[in-house]
Amino acid sequence: MNWEELSKELTIQTDSKIVLLVIDGLGGIPVRGKTELEAAETRNLDRLALQGTCGLTDPVLMGITPGSGPAHLGLFGYDPLRHVLGRGILEALGSDVEVKEGDLVARGNFATLKDGLITDRRAGRIPTSECERLCGLLNAALAGRKDPEITVFAGKEHRFVVRFRTSGLADALTDADPQKDGKPPIPTAPLAPEAAKASAVVNAFLTDAIQILKAEPVANAALLRGFSVHPSIPRMPDLYKLRPAGIASYPMYKGLAKLLGMTTYKVGPETADLFDTLEAHFAEHDFFYVHYKKTDAAGEDGNYAAKVAAIEEIDAFIPRLEALKPDVLVVTADHSTPAALHGHSWHPNPFLLVSPTALPDETGVFTERACGGGLLGRFPSVNAMPLMLAHAGKLKKYGA
Amino acid sequence: MNWEELSKELTIQTDSKIVLLVIDGLGGIPVRGKTELEAAETRNLDRLALQGTCGLTDPVLMGITPGSGPAHLGLFGYDPLRHVLGRGILEALGSDVEVKEGDLVARGNFATLKDGLITDRRAGRIPTSECERLCGLLNAALAGRKDPEITVFAGKEHRFVVRFRTSGLADALTDADPQKDGKPPIPTAPLAPEAAKASAVVNAFLTDAIQILKAEPVANAALLRGFSVHPSIPRMPDLYKLRPAGIASYPMYKGLAKLLGMTTYKVGPETADLFDTLEAHFAEHDFFYVHYKKTDAAGEDGNYAAKVAAIEEIDAFIPRLEALKPDVLVVTADHSTPAALHGHSWHPNPFLLVSPTALPDETGVFTERACGGGLLGRFPSVNAMPLMLAHAGKLKKYGA
Repeated sequence: MNWEELSKELTIQTDSKIVLLVIDGLGGIPVRGKTELEAAETRNLDRLALQGTCGLTDPVLMGITPGSGPAHLGLFGYDPLRHVLGRGILEALGSDVEVKEGDLVARGNFATLKDGLITDRRAGRIPTSECERLCGLLNAALAGRKDPEITVFAGKEHRFVVRFRTSGLADALTDADPQKDGKPPIPTAPLAPEAAKASAVVNAFLTDAIQILKAEPVANAALLRGFSVHPSIPRMPDLYKLRPAGIASYPMYKGLAKLLGMTTYKVGPETADLFDTLEAHFAEHDFFYVHYKKTDAAGEDGNYAAKVAAIEEIDAFIPRLEALKPDVLVVTADHSTPAALHGHSWHPNPFLLVSPTALPDETGVFTERACGGGLLGRFPSVNAMPLMLAHAGKLKKYGA
Repeated sequence: MNWEELSKELTIQTDSKIVLLVIDGLGGIPVRGKTELEAAETRNLDRLALQGTCGLTDPVLMGITPGSGPAHLGLFGYDPLRHVLGRGILEALGSDVEVKEGDLVARGNFATLKDGLITDRRAGRIPTSECERLCGLLNAALAGRKDPEITVFAGKEHRFVVRFRTSGLADALTDADPQKDGKPPIPTAPLAPEAAKASAVVNAFLTDAIQILKAEPVANAALLRGFSVHPSIPRMPDLYKLRPAGIASYPMYKGLAKLLGMTTYKVGPETADLFDTLEAHFAEHDFFYVHYKKTDAAGEDGNYAAKVAAIEEIDAFIPRLEALKPDVLVVTADHSTPAALHGHSWHPNPFLLVSPTALPDETGVFTERACGGGLLGRFPSVNAMPLMLAHAGKLKKYGA
C-alpha cells in the first residue's frame, strides 16, 4: 500500500480550505554569507513561521536537482520517481498547447536541409516572427486533414511544438533528429509494436513538411524529439476528493495543474493578479495552488538582487492570504534556484505550515537554515500533501 | 532487501535486555500554549531525556493518523503499510478471544428482524447482560458441532465477536450487514474463489442464529462484518531471535503482543501491576513491551487535565524501570492522542532512548518540541526496532 492507494481510501470531502503558495526556486545558497531569503526583509513570512511549524523538503531525493515537472508532482503527493512527464508534454504545456487524452506531442526545430543533409539543426536561429509565419504555412497546408489532425504551435526562434490528434497513438518513438549537423534527416522508429501507427503518422508529417516548406531558403525541414502522449496520471479530485484550483500566470504551471485535474483560470502577469484570482474564486474550491514565478526567473538569471526583491515582493502579499483565513496555509517552493548557480539545484526547500492543529515550533524567521531546525524536520516533498490534508481534517484514520 | 529480511540475517541472541515503554497516545497539541506533556511535571522522564538521545517518530507516514494496530506494528519493526490487521481480528483481540492460525473471526451485532426486514441494526442497544445471555444461548445450541466449531463472545451492549474454527477458511467476504434499518438481512458473499467455504459456513450460522433466537422479542438476528482470518505475520522470536514479553492490562494490546509471538501475562488494572509483572519476569526475557493506556483514554475523552495526571502517574514509575538496569530503555508512544482533538492524530511521537552506547544530545526535557531538536531527528517508527536491537548489541554488521 502506498500513499496514492491510501489516499483514495482515507480522504474525505470537507469544506475546509487549503492554500499552497509555491514560491518557485525560493531556496538558495549564501552569497557574502546570506542566502537570498536570509537577505530579504520578510516580516510577513517570518510572522507565519513563528505561528506555524517548519521544516525542509527534498523534492525527489537528497542531491537530486529536479525539473519543474518532478518538483511539482512531489508537492501534489505524486511520487516523482514513479510518474514521469515527458519533455514533449511539458513543452506543450509551457507553450499553452491544449493536450487531451490520446494526443501525441513533440518538440520541434525548424532546420536547414541542403543536398539531402541537415546543414543547420536550428535554421540559423530564425526570429520568432519567422517561426510564427512558418507554423502558419504548415497549419494552413494541413488544415484540411481530419485524421490525423495535426497542429503546429510556434515557440521562440526555431522552436515549435507539434500535436498529432487521432486514435491509437503511442510515444515509444525514437527522436527524428540526427542530433548533429551534416547528417541526413532521420525518420522516427517505433520502440514497441503499439507505436507503429504513431511512427507512420509522424514520418508522413516530416515528409509533408519538406514539401510544404520547399520554397523556404533557410527553414525548409522539421526535426522532432521528445515524443509524449498525454500521461496517464490520476487526477487530484479522484485521489483526494478535492475541488482544486491552480492559480498561475505561466502556461507550464497552469498546464501541469490542468493535467492533475485542477480548475485553472486566466491570470494576468502581475503578482497582484494571482491574489485577485484567488480571492475571486475562494468560495468555489477547497484546495488552491498559487504559483509565483519571479524568484525562479531571477535565480536562473543569476541575479541575486532581483531574487531578493522578488522575495520581498511576494512577502507583501502574505496578509491577503491570511485575510482569507484558510484552514491550512503552506508556503514553500518546488525546488531551489540559487542565484549563485544560475539554475535549479538539489538544495532543500524551506517549508512552513500554519493551521490550528499544528504544533508550533520555535522557528521565528522563514529561512532555509531556520526551517532546518523546525519540528517537521527534513522530509520528502511527497509527504506535504498528506500533511496538508491531515491538518485540514480531510484524512480518516488508517487501520483499526 | 528490506528490514524484515535483514533482521533475520543480522540479529543475534544475547543476554542484553531491552525495555520499551509505550505511553499510549502520549503526544498532543498545545492548549493555552502547552501540550499535555509540556504541562505535566515529569522529572524522571526529563532526567532520562538528559541522559539519552531523543527524536520524533511518524507511525505510518507524515499526516497519517493510525489506529492502534498499525501504530504498534511500526514500533515492533513491521511496515504498517505492508501488514494490515483486519478489524475483526483486532476486535477479537480486544475482547480477549483466543485466535489461532486458520480461525476466521468477525464483529457481530444482535439485531431486530420483523416481517423479513431488519428494523433495528442494534436491537435497541440491549444491555450487556442480555448480550451475554444471548451469546450463552447460541453457544449452547452450537456446542455439539465440531466442524466448524463456532463460538460467540459477548461484547458491550448489542456487540459480539464470532469465531469459526475449521480448515480452509478465508476472509475475502462481503459484510453480512444491510448497513441501514428497514432492509432485509443479507448473506455474506465470497470475493474470491478460496472464500467459498467460509461464505457457506458463515451463512449457515446466520440462518441457524435466526432459528435459535426465534423466541426472542428484540434480539432475534445476527449481523456480521469485518471478517478476518488470523493474519500471517512473522513472529518476533523468528525475526529478531528475541524472547519477548508483552506486559499490558488491556486485551487488545495483549492480543497484539501474542500475535507477534510475545509471551503475555495476566496483568491487573493498576499501573503498579505493569511494573510488578515486569519485575517478576525480568529474568525470563530479553525484550519487554510495557503498555500504559491511561494517557490515550484521557486524550480520547478530550480530558486534558486527566491526560496530564496520567503522564505524571507513569513518570513516578520510571525509577522502577531504571532500577532494573536494562541495556536499552526506550520511552515513546504508538501514536498521538491530543485532548484537543478527542482522538488519535497524525502528530509525531516523542521518543527517547537511554543506553551506554547512545550519543546523548542536549534534550533536557521530555516533550514533543524538545524531542524535535534531538539527535535522532524525525524518523519513521519502523526504525525504532533496529535502533533498539543495535544499542542492545543484538545486530551484526551488514555486508563486508
